[in-house]
Amino acid sequence: MIARFEAVRDAVDAAIEAALADLPDGDLADAMRYACVGGKRIRAFLVLESARLHAVPDARAMPVAVAVELLHAYSLVHDDLPAMDDDDLRRGMPTCHIQWNEATAILAGDALQAQAFEMLADPAIGEAEIRVALLRRFAEAVGARGMVWGQACDIAAETAVVALDLAAVKALQQAKTGALIRFAATAGAVIAAADPAPLEDYARHLGLAFQIADDILDVTGDPAQTGKRTGKDARMGKATFVSLLGLDTARDKAAAIVGKAVDALNAYPGGEPVENLRQLARFIIHRQT
Amino acid sequence: MIARFEAVRDAVDAAIEAALADLPDGDLADAMRYACVGGKRIRAFLVLESARLHAVPDARAMPVAVAVELLHAYSLVHDDLPAMDDDDLRRGMPTCHIQWNEATAILAGDALQAQAFEMLADPAIGEAEIRVALLRRFAEAVGARGMVWGQACDIAAETAVVALDLAAVKALQQAKTGALIRFAATAGAVIAAADPAPLEDYARHLGLAFQIADDILDVTGDPAQTGKRTGKDARMGKATFVSLLGLDTARDKAAAIVGKAVDALNAYPGGEPVENLRQLARFIIHRQT
Repeated sequence: MIARFEAVRDAVDAAIEAALADLPDGDLADAMRYACVGGKRIRAFLVLESARLHAVPDARAMPVAVAVELLHAYSLVHDDLPAMDDDDLRRGMPTCHIQWNEATAILAGDALQAQAFEMLADPAIGEAEIRVALLRRFAEAVGARGMVWGQACDIAAETAVVALDLAAVKALQQAKTGALIRFAATAGAVIAAADPAPLEDYARHLGLAFQIADDILDVTGDPAQTGKRTGKDARMGKATFVSLLGLDTARDKAAAIVGKAVDALNAYPGGEPVENLRQLARFIIHRQT
Repeated sequence: MIARFEAVRDAVDAAIEAALADLPDGDLADAMRYACVGGKRIRAFLVLESARLHAVPDARAMPVAVAVELLHAYSLVHDDLPAMDDDDLRRGMPTCHIQWNEATAILAGDALQAQAFEMLADPAIGEAEIRVALLRRFAEAVGARGMVWGQACDIAAETAVVALDLAAVKALQQAKTGALIRFAATAGAVIAAADPAPLEDYARHLGLAFQIADDILDVTGDPAQTGKRTGKDARMGKATFVSLLGLDTARDKAAAIVGKAVDALNAYPGGEPVENLRQLARFIIHRQT
């Protein structure tokens, strides 16, 4: 899986570079490219492996993989803004508004979102019906019922009088990080016009495990490795899986959820893409970045 | 034309309300709806009349009209942010970040952009091929080669040492406000799978006239009527059509450009939609808001 993961990362990096190649020169284009550097490309990997699982070649899935990564990059740029999470470090580099300024960061995020949607018009993906199906699912994953809604809840929770309970944190995270992960992991089935239900099940567990691991990393992680500030949730008094469950129980829970993600893929006959998706789920809770 | 314009405005207002009806309760949904209140719906009118010109019924064009208005609303919310144009008054009401806060305004803009793209997936518009064609044109009009690029240039110009000349102001405005107007005015042709060239020509002139009129209104307008602060360009020492040409020449130029917009429609046999589009062009330079 490691070899495939690295090959995907390099191919996705190149495809992102190509997608952002022909923009008018200036801070806006520079900031957009900067915001896309250094991602782990987990979401792109989900798109490409769920596609392979349905015998869809990388060439058809790649524009969708790029769309997901551009969208993810936009969300990080806006989340890092002073008015939001106010972070100055991301992927080991100054955040976009530190490197440039707030206006450029807001606009770079806006343009990355538009560019992400534009990728879905690429005829390489397949029939127009498929591209429209992806468009609808993508927009739902992003907008006021998906990622952006999750982020709004997260911001609201910071100033709320009553801290969130476990069910609320789960719902919030299933929107904030889960919605885009679900889109990515089911994209292959949608491109192949196949039933996305088993992948949806896999992705729901994966997204949750991913977020619990993120909360754990915020407590145990080394900024030199994670490339972002740690210990922030505790300083902010934020309700997280770790603050609500304790570190050990959170770890146990993440491991159990990864087991469910792995099992969800039993719906498929097996093969390399299925095994890769299983390994990705296991990797999620052992990663240090 | 006035009766049709008012009927369109009411129908578009209702369609926007319906599009934003089923969002999770909270500040995010409230801010999104707030940001859409009170628009003149000029862009929606362009979509619906260019559609009628091609015998496309309102029901097919309406999701596109709503998309354009949601997108326009998002752009205003982000442009008004303190890090951007720092405006506190819009359409006679406190701007979104004043009414709520910056985080909510950023997120409401983000979600409005996603929702705008989602509208283009609506099967009511027509075949999937047509929806994908609209998606591509829409994304181009918005992103790092369109509206967002224009806004980035506008922000950059504020701190530039050398003021923009007329050609630069024109290029900037053709991106910042022109790109979305061109998308809107050609949408009807795209939905009908017809040649959009004459409408493109009309829209290019219309967009320019619109911006010159905006610059004039910033000098001559009454905040009680425009619903936003005036005199701002001059206070900021911003290069505008008025600062570069003088008020009288700017007025003459706007009138001449409207004439070109009107003439561009000679490519069509005539009829009510063509006449409405001509009247809209004339209205553009006489409006007080």
